[in-house]
Amino acid sequence: MRQSSPMTTTMTSTFTSTSTLSAFPALTNDTFLRACRRQATGYTPLWLMRQAGRYLPEYKATRAKAGSFMGLATNVDYATEVTLQPLERFPLDAAILFSDILTVPDAMGLGLTFAEGEGPRFATVVRDEAAVNALAVPDMDKLRYVFDAVTSIRKALNGRVPLIGFSGSPWTLACYMVEGRGSQDYRHIKSLMYARPDLMQRILQVNADSVAQYLNAQIDAGAQAVMIFDSWGGVLADGMFQQFSLAYTKQVLAQLKRTGVDGQDVPRIVFTKGGGIWLPDMKDMDCEVLGLDWTANLTQARALVGESKALQGNIDPNVLFAPPEAVAAQARAVLDSFGKPHTDRSTTGATHIFNLGHGISQFTPPEHVSALVETVHSYSRQLRQAV
Amino acid sequence: MRQSSPMTTTMTSTFTSTSTLSAFPALTNDTFLRACRRQATGYTPLWLMRQAGRYLPEYKATRAKAGSFMGLATNVDYATEVTLQPLERFPLDAAILFSDILTVPDAMGLGLTFAEGEGPRFATVVRDEAAVNALAVPDMDKLRYVFDAVTSIRKALNGRVPLIGFSGSPWTLACYMVEGRGSQDYRHIKSLMYARPDLMQRILQVNADSVAQYLNAQIDAGAQAVMIFDSWGGVLADGMFQQFSLAYTKQVLAQLKRTGVDGQDVPRIVFTKGGGIWLPDMKDMDCEVLGLDWTANLTQARALVGESKALQGNIDPNVLFAPPEAVAAQARAVLDSFGKPHTDRSTTGATHIFNLGHGISQFTPPEHVSALVETVHSYSRQLRQAV
Repeated sequence: MRQSSPMTTTMTSTFTSTSTLSAFPALTNDTFLRACRRQATGYTPLWLMRQAGRYLPEYKATRAKAGSFMGLATNVDYATEVTLQPLERFPLDAAILFSDILTVPDAMGLGLTFAEGEGPRFATVVRDEAAVNALAVPDMDKLRYVFDAVTSIRKALNGRVPLIGFSGSPWTLACYMVEGRGSQDYRHIKSLMYARPDLMQRILQVNADSVAQYLNAQIDAGAQAVMIFDSWGGVLADGMFQQFSLAYTKQVLAQLKRTGVDGQDVPRIVFTKGGGIWLPDMKDMDCEVLGLDWTANLTQARALVGESKALQGNIDPNVLFAPPEAVAAQARAVLDSFGKPHTDRSTTGATHIFNLGHGISQFTPPEHVSALVETVHSYSRQLRQAV
Repeated sequence: MRQSSPMTTTMTSTFTSTSTLSAFPALTNDTFLRACRRQATGYTPLWLMRQAGRYLPEYKATRAKAGSFMGLATNVDYATEVTLQPLERFPLDAAILFSDILTVPDAMGLGLTFAEGEGPRFATVVRDEAAVNALAVPDMDKLRYVFDAVTSIRKALNGRVPLIGFSGSPWTLACYMVEGRGSQDYRHIKSLMYARPDLMQRILQVNADSVAQYLNAQIDAGAQAVMIFDSWGGVLADGMFQQFSLAYTKQVLAQLKRTGVDGQDVPRIVFTKGGGIWLPDMKDMDCEVLGLDWTANLTQARALVGESKALQGNIDPNVLFAPPEAVAAQARAVLDSFGKPHTDRSTTGATHIFNLGHGISQFTPPEHVSALVETVHSYSRQLRQAV
């Protein structure tokens, strides 16, 4: 999860109208979107969770100019600048909006702050009936700085690669809203869930409706695909995951717009960190792409999911600390694990989008990322030639 | 994981000879051991990971007397006292040695220390070839305080319930040895593993041999079952788990004594936190019991494992923060999920040992534990009557 703070914003840019947005230039590289749609591609597209981030010196420079992460995330120009930075270094196949998953609960009025090196904190925690009853879907106007950033980034991309919008899942947002910060044991939210499931469900219902509106506004602003990060779904017990996370992710999916401002369909990606064990529960979800972390075996996942969804993942970001030749070997292993993707351009089939199983570490040497990208592109072309 | 420190110890008790140990009294309650052996029992036995711990005021009182966790863990009398404390409160079906998983690397000379509220730290970290080459199986005499505690506890139990010995897995010990402390991202050990698998394998080989000797000495001292905690196996990528954790756990299992000092077989339990996704890889392991965390579905696990192993687990310890009636409902759900256990006393079959999916939290109200224990015992009797 990326750190940010929406807070009060002094953005002056105006929300661009749909008619203007439909004038976005055609995509030069649609490999990622084709793979999302289970269409054959010449190679396996890749992007990296948290690809715009602290491992890049140019990101640190922009952040320094912005003064803080909060200043960075709420400034459309800076958000646009850092979103594009990794594309200048690496031939990645998608860009992802630079923002934070906690923008939505902040817009609900919970008071997000960051202390340097401590991660996010909310001034208000949601742990009792009064706090739960006070929750409501936020006015999307408070999140206008996010939608403005989407439009700005899409324009700046100029058709180079598609732009992915995103949100935390209802459950993952609730973890922060109830715990008030990151947690090791999720004691507060699980206490609430087991003791007062009715209150927990009310929080999740507000979150599901909020996330749906938030992602729809990103789609209207120009997002070409959207991803729901269920970063903490994996901490739930079997049975509770299905009831308190998956059910609400499904509610979001059901409410999402299927067509973007340019008339193209907008693929929906769902990623539950630590959720590989529940793949049988997720395989029939109404989305186009399932994200998997590195604990999942892609051969088995592909066999289970069949051709109904594209799979995204799943190298351990810690691989990137190894020397380039070891990075390349592990990248090939992930591609081999998925196996030869669908290559028939006349129909749809099983496709793979290469990604990390979690956000890239700030300690990653950028030249190791180059080795990863180069290997994924070249080896996945070879793999398609294999008989 | 429990905190402790062996360090230098001034233990004066003498390691009891095998002939003396064989005079241990017969078990009054062998329900746990019968379930480990896949024999029918009148109810589902239960014990709780970290059942002797800070949620008990009497534990805190003993720890205060001992002056520190280190003083507690290395003093045979105190270790015996706290091991028995939860049995005085709750009719649990097994006791587990009070100790820490880091005793073994400490005996290797890595210099374990504890700063209050900070968790364990090693003075020496094992990250380069020289440090790896310097590793060796420790002299088991340095761990005599542990074996003395096993004998003392077994005597004090006086046949009431069986005593479980334990160790961290080779991989889990290595995590601490390489990271030097608890970690969020396992960056150092994964860097070593991906960059220098040869060094990683050497560490794991030393650990496997050390753990085997350590558990065998616990068996010789009177342990009636042994458990291997692979607390951090779940952080590995698919493929790496099998190669860097499971393979070495198997090496430990292959070296373990199968018979205790009383001539009884000694069941071996393996628990990989976060390892449910790899159950197909673990189901044929040479052990008697597989532990599962709360993400696993017991119905599915039972179907997969069949009658080849007992299953131990798997309620979320956070359930214990809910009111007693909610605790009871969740306990019944776990028992229902496993289903009716094998009841034919003439043969072996599918058995269940109830446990948490992780250690009990220090914030747990003890009366909620009472509700759990009572429900598991009573409801599991009912379940056996069901047609």
